[in-house]
Amino acid sequence: MKSLGIGLIGTGYMGKCHALAWNSVLPVFGDIPRPRLVHLAEANPDLATQRAAEFGFEQATGDWRELIANPDVDVVSITTPNAFHAEMAIAALEAGKHVWCEKPMAPALADAERMADAAKASGKTTVLGYNYIQNPMMRHISQLLAEDTIGTVNHVRVEMDEDFMADPTATFYWKSEASSGYGALDDFGVHPLSLLHYLFGNVSRVMASMAKPFPTRPLKDGTPRDVETFDIASVLFELETGASGVMALNRSAWGRKGRIALQIFGSRGTITYDQERMNEFQLYTTSDRGTEQGFRTILTAPAHEPYNRFIPAPGHGLGFNDLKIIECHELLNKIDGRPSQTIGFAEGLDIERAVHAMAQSHREQRWIAV
Amino acid sequence: MKSLGIGLIGTGYMGKCHALAWNSVLPVFGDIPRPRLVHLAEANPDLATQRAAEFGFEQATGDWRELIANPDVDVVSITTPNAFHAEMAIAALEAGKHVWCEKPMAPALADAERMADAAKASGKTTVLGYNYIQNPMMRHISQLLAEDTIGTVNHVRVEMDEDFMADPTATFYWKSEASSGYGALDDFGVHPLSLLHYLFGNVSRVMASMAKPFPTRPLKDGTPRDVETFDIASVLFELETGASGVMALNRSAWGRKGRIALQIFGSRGTITYDQERMNEFQLYTTSDRGTEQGFRTILTAPAHEPYNRFIPAPGHGLGFNDLKIIECHELLNKIDGRPSQTIGFAEGLDIERAVHAMAQSHREQRWIAV
Amino acid sequence: MKSLGIGLIGTGYMGKCHALAWNSVLPVFGDIPRPRLVHLAEANPDLATQRAAEFGFEQATGDWRELIANPDVDVVSITTPNAFHAEMAIAALEAGKHVWCEKPMAPALADAERMADAAKASGKTTVLGYNYIQNPMMRHISQLLAEDTIGTVNHVRVEMDEDFMADPTATFYWKSEASSGYGALDDFGVHPLSLLHYLFGNVSRVMASMAKPFPTRPLKDGTPRDVETFDIASVLFELETGASGVMALNRSAWGRKGRIALQIFGSRGTITYDQERMNEFQLYTTSDRGTEQGFRTILTAPAHEPYNRFIPAPGHGLGFNDLKIIECHELLNKIDGRPSQTIGFAEGLDIERAVHAMAQSHREQRWIAV
Amino acid sequence: MKSLGIGLIGTGYMGKCHALAWNSVLPVFGDIPRPRLVHLAEANPDLATQRAAEFGFEQATGDWRELIANPDVDVVSITTPNAFHAEMAIAALEAGKHVWCEKPMAPALADAERMADAAKASGKTTVLGYNYIQNPMMRHISQLLAEDTIGTVNHVRVEMDEDFMADPTATFYWKSEASSGYGALDDFGVHPLSLLHYLFGNVSRVMASMAKPFPTRPLKDGTPRDVETFDIASVLFELETGASGVMALNRSAWGRKGRIALQIFGSRGTITYDQERMNEFQLYTTSDRGTEQGFRTILTAPAHEPYNRFIPAPGHGLGFNDLKIIECHELLNKIDGRPSQTIGFAEGLDIERAVHAMAQSHREQRWIAV
Repeated sequence: MKSLGIGLIGTGYMGKCHALAWNSVLPVFGDIPRPRLVHLAEANPDLATQRAAEFGFEQATGDWRELIANPDVDVVSITTPNAFHAEMAIAALEAGKHVWCEKPMAPALADAERMADAAKASGKTTVLGYNYIQNPMMRHISQLLAEDTIGTVNHVRVEMDEDFMADPTATFYWKSEASSGYGALDDFGVHPLSLLHYLFGNVSRVMASMAKPFPTRPLKDGTPRDVETFDIASVLFELETGASGVMALNRSAWGRKGRIALQIFGSRGTITYDQERMNEFQLYTTSDRGTEQGFRTILTAPAHEPYNRFIPAPGHGLGFNDLKIIECHELLNKIDGRPSQTIGFAEGLDIERAVHAMAQSHREQRWIAV
Repeated sequence: MKSLGIGLIGTGYMGKCHALAWNSVLPVFGDIPRPRLVHLAEANPDLATQRAAEFGFEQATGDWRELIANPDVDVVSITTPNAFHAEMAIAALEAGKHVWCEKPMAPALADAERMADAAKASGKTTVLGYNYIQNPMMRHISQLLAEDTIGTVNHVRVEMDEDFMADPTATFYWKSEASSGYGALDDFGVHPLSLLHYLFGNVSRVMASMAKPFPTRPLKDGTPRDVETFDIASVLFELETGASGVMALNRSAWGRKGRIALQIFGSRGTITYDQERMNEFQLYTTSDRGTEQGFRTILTAPAHEPYNRFIPAPGHGLGFNDLKIIECHELLNKIDGRPSQTIGFAEGLDIERAVHAMAQSHREQRWIAV
Repeated sequence: MKSLGIGLIGTGYMGKCHALAWNSVLPVFGDIPRPRLVHLAEANPDLATQRAAEFGFEQATGDWRELIANPDVDVVSITTPNAFHAEMAIAALEAGKHVWCEKPMAPALADAERMADAAKASGKTTVLGYNYIQNPMMRHISQLLAEDTIGTVNHVRVEMDEDFMADPTATFYWKSEASSGYGALDDFGVHPLSLLHYLFGNVSRVMASMAKPFPTRPLKDGTPRDVETFDIASVLFELETGASGVMALNRSAWGRKGRIALQIFGSRGTITYDQERMNEFQLYTTSDRGTEQGFRTILTAPAHEPYNRFIPAPGHGLGFNDLKIIECHELLNKIDGRPSQTIGFAEGLDIERAVHAMAQSHREQRWIAV
Repeated sequence: MKSLGIGLIGTGYMGKCHALAWNSVLPVFGDIPRPRLVHLAEANPDLATQRAAEFGFEQATGDWRELIANPDVDVVSITTPNAFHAEMAIAALEAGKHVWCEKPMAPALADAERMADAAKASGKTTVLGYNYIQNPMMRHISQLLAEDTIGTVNHVRVEMDEDFMADPTATFYWKSEASSGYGALDDFGVHPLSLLHYLFGNVSRVMASMAKPFPTRPLKDGTPRDVETFDIASVLFELETGASGVMALNRSAWGRKGRIALQIFGSRGTITYDQERMNEFQLYTTSDRGTEQGFRTILTAPAHEPYNRFIPAPGHGLGFNDLKIIECHELLNKIDGRPSQTIGFAEGLDIERAVHAMAQSHREQRWIAV
């Protein structure tokens, strides 16, 4: 594997996350050539220069097309607002770059489809930023399912709740405008969908209902303005495996900060997980003696790979940013043709289709096949 | 208030529960005349005699009509299988007795309607065995909602899960026959519905989907027989208050023993509760300083009435059977015209209607108004 | 077994608890003759009459000696303040009664010794009110230890914390006077000691230190008065089994309501328990596969006897008062010569000796052999 | 502040941790000059070269003295086994370098004293690797204590438990030899002591008892060999503040992976924390209304600095390695004369003295003043 030149577009939260991953992926894993941090693009050129210095990039630019035109760049990290993903990703792919793009793909399904087409046409590697599937706990859950530890999965529930929209007295901002999308559904529903996709494959059929906890929110001068997006989305679904399920999303859920709660019911046991305590999961199995059956709380440990690349002692805990380092390593594995667990543009399109089918189901108040 | 004569029909689990309540309600509360345990009916006359001795009833009979004909009986506890509720309750009401009947009212909606009609016609007191609303924690949650502690409730989730049907290798029995009802929906969905009713009033609109985790179960000789009921039911709903919600039921949920998990989202906070830890609930409120906001785990204490009638020290814990003692006391309050928090036949009918609307929604795959 | 006549002395919290147990023990267990509630004594004769009516006792008296002289009384429940235990228990034993006495035995070791002597001389049955050992969870833990599930126990930690003395602005009352005893040590340290005794046998050696969180407390007029007892006690100990341990007590521990937290470390696993969640315990065992080892939360279930006598379904939960019903049943078993798990006066004396050795250790600041 | 040249000695777990911190400290914090990774030393020269490439160091050596002699090195990270700390740290200080040394200082108190003397004489900055004090949750707890949120702290309990020595069938290795130290006491007791030091200052008086859960362990051929160290240590203590406390350590505690459980009792509330769930802590305060008082579980959030430097959204979680990045940043702050929360050699010596006083207390079975 040759050393790759890295370009990073965007320096917000996710931009920083990618930058941290590019800086740490070699020290953590030790099994790859050193990535060369070549070019950083950020709309504000002064900020671009500053962040390039902080993040260790050689060059900075206010024009992302310059970065894509840079022949030293082999991989492009795209961390800009969703509306820019399609244009940038397609340009990068057409320029022969590999693309690591933040989720979701794009607000419009047609754009997501174009991205998937471009990825296919290019033959290049694409990875979407569905970092929660990179958690060693999630990897281990996937392995337990494959080993049939809880038997056949017949029902799944997943909740994702945060409270950044929970305050009805907060000033109206763009997340309540229709132009931002449907609301909770595409804003963060794609995360639980990525877990479902990773663990079980595609959703086949959906029945969704969305709700507005607050029909209006105050403008700066106090005037109420109609809210156009749905902070709450509740979905009944069926998986292609035949299992039934429920997905419940609420971005106005006071007290929830990063909850992604999963309940997986099988014919011989149950697995539960909550992202707010990302270093543990719960397993109930009927193979325990009856009088001692109970949910086991299992803490991350070196045997849950690749936790051991970070820490050789159990129970010490990974953080959210570490998931991005693992994702970065999986991207490099994928580029190099090694086994890799990621969601590329092709699989990402399945997730986007599920989201849009849910929105359609809400509008038409009926079950929709994905 | 005069001393009341008590008749008890049925001596299974709930029969015993009622008997324990009738024995303990005076020693616990101290504010009522001693109930006189007059008559016990049980199909098996020998068992009737034995249980009458154990439970402290004066007389025993193998014929419940004898009990209802007994002029010394003022109140009839009905704890027989659901199919018998209507006939017995109506007979008791027509004989001028007050009725304490286990939930649900009856498998058929028409029977439940007849029960409600009979109750109205009789002018007698009726109470259904929705004991979970009697938990001092639930009472306190209700009070907090009334005090606007978490602001306007805009979304509710409730789950009820047990695992008594979770083993696909267990022999087929009557709970998998269509004659037993829909499955989880009426078998225990009425419990979470009773909580919703108690806290928020009626459900106005439902969209339900039921599922069979195991399409067949083995007969005693191993031959598979088709399962006719649904162990899983998932429901989207709207409350008359305007709040949206999700109800998820699973009686094949390995590891869940008596889970009734409630999440109540408001404009200023959140309340959660799980029946498996019935002596506590969680409250998140934005009135705490931002850096110290978190879910508080609040343990039952004497100030959460009527816990103090049982125990004067906090955190020592009530048990499930204690809820029935409280219910019994509320029944006596209701008979005597004192304030009382119970679900009678009139309110119970609302719950039955919601259940049948959910079943219809599943069949027709569309939203149904209750 | 013949029906026994019951006398109850005291009608405070524990008096009510005993009364509830005497009313419920037959309906719950069904395997004993009906106890006859004969006589109730309470210093205030009017209150005695009122409580006799509530609790179902035939006669009431303001003079406990009358009760003991009553030939119809076979068993005496003693629930008065600790200072009265010795006199009453000895009188009852000398009158040929069985004695069920609340814990601890007596403030002075000499009195406890006289009680044990009287019990021995009488040949009658004695049971002390160490109700926490009656929890089906504790029974099951004991059984798991006997089955060697966690191997050889080499270390034990136990904490007992409540907050009824935590407020330094509360008015000085008798619990801060030296005449009430040492403080947390004898006030409630006997409870964790009863668990240690039940699970492991005697403590052999102790090193204790007691502390006053608040050196003074205000009298009613605000004047500070010196506190004479110790709300905090911390103890290093060794068990006769050779295991080491730590006991930590704090009755000024804000937020703790009825915490008795046990951690039992063995050569092949660990068991933990907290009385504030009395319907569950945690088990970690190395017999689980390495990657799935974790603490299992095990909920009470019918297989954990005698939970099934109360409730046939798992996870529904017993309450504190139910423990007293089990204790009552064990007393009756013991009287009748059946196997029984109780702490009588002989074993209770071991606990008292440990307490006094701890107090001596604190005074002399050195290890003391019990 | 000028850019500093970094030397790293040791490439084991902690060596990697320091390397990760040096790579990430600028991208995370953005407010410091880029550290120059100059020199890496590791006894095995081939490994040194390999790790230098992975970790991004310019030069590698098998001889740590070469690194210390390198004029381009301004700061030396020492991550070798404890026995080497004194020699290396003193040499580095004498060569005019700042020193970041892993904990504990040295097995022998005399060596720790020499280290503190050398630090003082050099005028250079020293920081010990007590990373748990860098957790934003711990910082916030410290701030709450300073704000008097729980009033005057009168009692503290701290436990540290892991299970890496819990298997009695595992082969005897150096941690059971007397030459490795006392056992749990110095092996990891220094971590809880660092928390006590950070939050409350020095321990003034100790009474300790150590225990061996397994008196022998098998050699490779199965022959039992006497264990010379103590896997368990239990300590009663007093703080200089006057508060009393208990510290309990067990490195043979099955199921505990990285538990450092803290309970802080104050006159107006209680704080608890467990390192196994390092992104949360619990607060109970009497300022809540009585009926809603309970332990709040508070999740890390941007307002708990410097969490916001890593992640702008609450509840997403830091990992263990992130603590080392914060520690690294504090070291740089300290070097540059900015406010900094660290434990240097002077404060570290207080911790070492407490450890040795505890060992003496165990030997002499009496209280020892630190």
